[in-house]
This record gives sequence, structure tokens and C-alpha cells, in this order.
Amino acid sequence: MKVLLVFAHPEPRSLNGALRDIAVDELKAQGHEVQVSDLYAEGWKSEVDRADFPSLAPDARFKPAKASGEALADNSLTPDVKAEQEKILWADVLILQFPLWWFSMPAILKGWIDRVYSYGFAYGVGEHSDKRWGDRYGEGTLAGKRAMLIVTAGGWEEHYSARGVNGPIDDLLFPINHGILYYPGYDVLPPFVAYKVDRLDDTGFETMAEHLRERMRTLGTIAPIPYRQQNAGDYLIPSMQLRPELGDPRETGFTLHLNKAIKIAAE
Amino acid sequence: MKVLLVFAHPEPRSLNGALRDIAVDELKAQGHEVQVSDLYAEGWKSEVDRADFPSLAPDARFKPAKASGEALADNSLTPDVKAEQEKILWADVLILQFPLWWFSMPAILKGWIDRVYSYGFAYGVGEHSDKRWGDRYGEGTLAGKRAMLIVTAGGWEEHYSARGVNGPIDDLLFPINHGILYYPGYDVLPPFVAYKVDRLDDTGFETMAEHLRERMRTLGTIAPIPYRQQNAGDYLIPSMQLRPELGDPRETGFTLHLNKAIKIAAE
Repeated sequence: MKVLLVFAHPEPRSLNGALRDIAVDELKAQGHEVQVSDLYAEGWKSEVDRADFPSLAPDARFKPAKASGEALADNSLTPDVKAEQEKILWADVLILQFPLWWFSMPAILKGWIDRVYSYGFAYGVGEHSDKRWGDRYGEGTLAGKRAMLIVTAGGWEEHYSARGVNGPIDDLLFPINHGILYYPGYDVLPPFVAYKVDRLDDTGFETMAEHLRERMRTLGTIAPIPYRQQNAGDYLIPSMQLRPELGDPRETGFTLHLNKAIKIAAE
Repeated sequence: MKVLLVFAHPEPRSLNGALRDIAVDELKAQGHEVQVSDLYAEGWKSEVDRADFPSLAPDARFKPAKASGEALADNSLTPDVKAEQEKILWADVLILQFPLWWFSMPAILKGWIDRVYSYGFAYGVGEHSDKRWGDRYGEGTLAGKRAMLIVTAGGWEEHYSARGVNGPIDDLLFPINHGILYYPGYDVLPPFVAYKVDRLDDTGFETMAEHLRERMRTLGTIAPIPYRQQNAGDYLIPSMQLRPELGDPRETGFTLHLNKAIKIAAE
């Protein structure tokens, strides 16, 4: 397989740097081709602004979605954005690796999403009708590809558990896993999350490294998170509500969007 | 009151720009003092990197949390970060205004959080013992102040409702409201969210504007989201699990962290 790893830590001599090298080495040992986009090392620009759209008239009102759709269509996106889109299309698997800062990704990686996910590429794809509401949530440009997160957190695993004070890690990552990765079509694999990373001894590191190697070995086979496909019948169109007969009526929150029948079958 | 509005849209001639002006005008009409941090206009730097810590030795391994704590302690943070921390301390109310991009804030605003929220300022505050786990989640540097979000979304309100395909808006915003605003001590007000903003006619705009004015008039009085305080007895220490007798045992997700008794009293 072809794997793109997008890396968003400013220090190569960090735990994140070590984990990246372990992941890349294991992927290569398995015969995969790997490209790494090292955002800090490459001086990635984080902000969506007018400079991203050189063909926009200087006096035109800047509408980000419209400008990005037009620039994609007339091939006038900036070279840094085009290069990342080409890598995304090249790869069978996308890995986003980052330290969890304030319960989300660092700004530089958010800026990679904001700028690379053009209108017509990652959103604004497909037709709207009484049967379909665009190609998104399980369909779209990146359908058939896989994606996963590698995340490090300073806090304790218990603090991110079902009743932990930070909120459950799967819910904290839902806006990324479902909203950023599943949206343009990726099959999203369960994340690799390393906890308490500031207090890691050698044994802890080796255990973590072996777990990560195992995850890299099963990248092509592990079952994805069983999110419900938007256009496969589970949602009403155009209100995009989950059909009333699906899910527990008392259930609230993100887990409604999991097809638990599939999950059980996969485990 | 003193109000700081942090604005993160690249185009002043946008709906966001118009809503900002409406909010600021109404606040001033109510006699409040207002400062605006216009991140795009000011060329805000989004990335946490070594340049943020001029006193860090050139050959030292860069550890972001440690470097930020040391720079706060020896007063060597960069002038742009110091200026924003001073505005935060000046303000009784913080408003973050942004377009919802990929179910979160634009990179430039995430970079404002990542850089301004220093260790020792917004986290790493207070002692850890068998009674307290730091000053966070309802306590901390910013306790006694209020904060709220002003958010615009292209999608439909139904798509962000309890059973909508995007996930409920309150859950999508939880990592920000609870994880970024409540964490350092703010009382977090319900967000102002504008939907379907790309298809707004004049009537729709005026309704939205009046709703926003009303929210600005009640900034000091509206009841905050009733998140549970970490150190007030609801959580076990140090596992930081919600006590087993609290919340519905079948409940999952972020709503567990709301004290519903308070919410009902406030409504």
C-alpha cells in the first residue's frame, strides 16, 4: 500500500518524532511505500487567506469556499496545496499524527485541513436530490481509502474514559474522525492514542512502540469505525436526521452515528 | 463590563464582519468597554514553535509545555502573546467569533489558543492532592469571568440537531466550550450559532442580527452552561471519573458533565 503520514510536532527529538520513525520503519518493513508531510519542517502556512487564491481579483470580496472551488476548477491553487492534494490522491492510507493540544489538533495541522480540503475536493462533491445529499459521510473523493489518527496526550487514560472529566476520547476525536476523515469518504480506523506521555519510562515506551508497530501491521485489515453512511438509507433527506426507528431513543450524542450491528460483527 | 472579542474571519466584508460590528455596537450602546483582536488583520502567527521562546537555548530540545511555563515565569513570552494575555486578564467577558470550518475553529484561532494559553496561565495551575487535581474545569486563572462563542455555519440547523448527521452542535463545540473555555475557569455561556449562512436573505439577516443584539444585552445575566466543577465533589480523585451515583448509568457522552439539576433551575 501507499501511506501518507502528516506529522505535526515542532520538535523532531520528541516522543512524537520517535513514534513517527517507528511507524514509518514498520510500514517500510511491511513493504509499503511511505511519504511524510512534516508540516513544521516544511514551514507549512496555516491560515486560509487571499494569498491562497492568486486568481482572485484584488477588489473581490473573499469568500473562502467559493474561492477554493474556483481555484480547484481552474487549477490555480497554490503549489503547496496542490502537492498535498496529489499526495492524498496517491495514498491508499492517510495517517494524521499530532499531540493533542486543547483537545484537538495543533493549529498547523488544522491549517493543513483548512487549506488542502478544497471545495470540490473534500466537500461540495456530488449532487443533492431527494435520494442523496452530496457525496459525503462515507462517499466522496476519498472513498475506498483508509485513514487513522496517531495522537499523544499528556493526561491519563482514565481522564479520557467513558465517565472521565475530559470527556471520552472517541467523542473528543469525533469532529476529526467523522467530520474531517469520514466526511470526504475515508474509512476511519480506530485511533492510536498514547497517554501520560510526559511520564514515560523505557518499559512504557517499548510497550507503546510495539503497540504502534502492531497497528501499522494491521493497517490494511483492521475493521474501520462503523459510522453510518449518509446516503445508504439511515438518514432522512433533506433533514439529515437519523431515522426515528434507528438507535436507542434515549441515546444522545455521537454514538448514535455508529452502526452497532456492524461493530459487533467486526469484533 | 469589559469585553474582549477575538475575531477570526479573513474578510471584513463578510457576514462574520457584519455580525462582529453588530455585536460591538450593541455592547458599546450598553455602556461596555470593548477590545477586538482581529487575528487576520493583525497577522497573527498560528504555529507554536521555537521562535515563541527566545530564551530557549538553541540546542535545547523544544518541549512546548515546559518552554511556555518557563517563558511565562521569566517574563520572556513574545510581545504578541503577552498583549493577548493582558487583554484576557483585562476583560470580564471573552467572546470567540469564527466560521465553523471542519466542525471546529479556523487554524488561526486555534493558534491563538495554542500560543496564548501558556502553561501556568491557562493550564498547569494549582496543586494536585487527594482533594484537588489542579485548578481547572471551573477554577483557575480566569475563574469569575464569562466566555461565549459566536459561530457561523453553512449547514442547516437540523443537520446539527440531536439526531442530525453532523452530530449535535453542543457536542461538536464541547471540546471548545468545556476543554478550552471552562478549563481555565470561565463560566461558559450558551453559544450563538447562525446556520445556513450562505443563503441568508435580508429578513433572515435582520432576525439573526436582533437575536445577536439580544445575546449581547444579556451577556452579564444569562445562566452559564452548568458544567460540573472538577474539584467540588462530583469526580473521584485522581481517576477523575464522575462518581458512579451521578448521572444516568446508561448515559454516555459529554452530557454526563452537565449538572442537570442546575440547568433545570436556571431555565
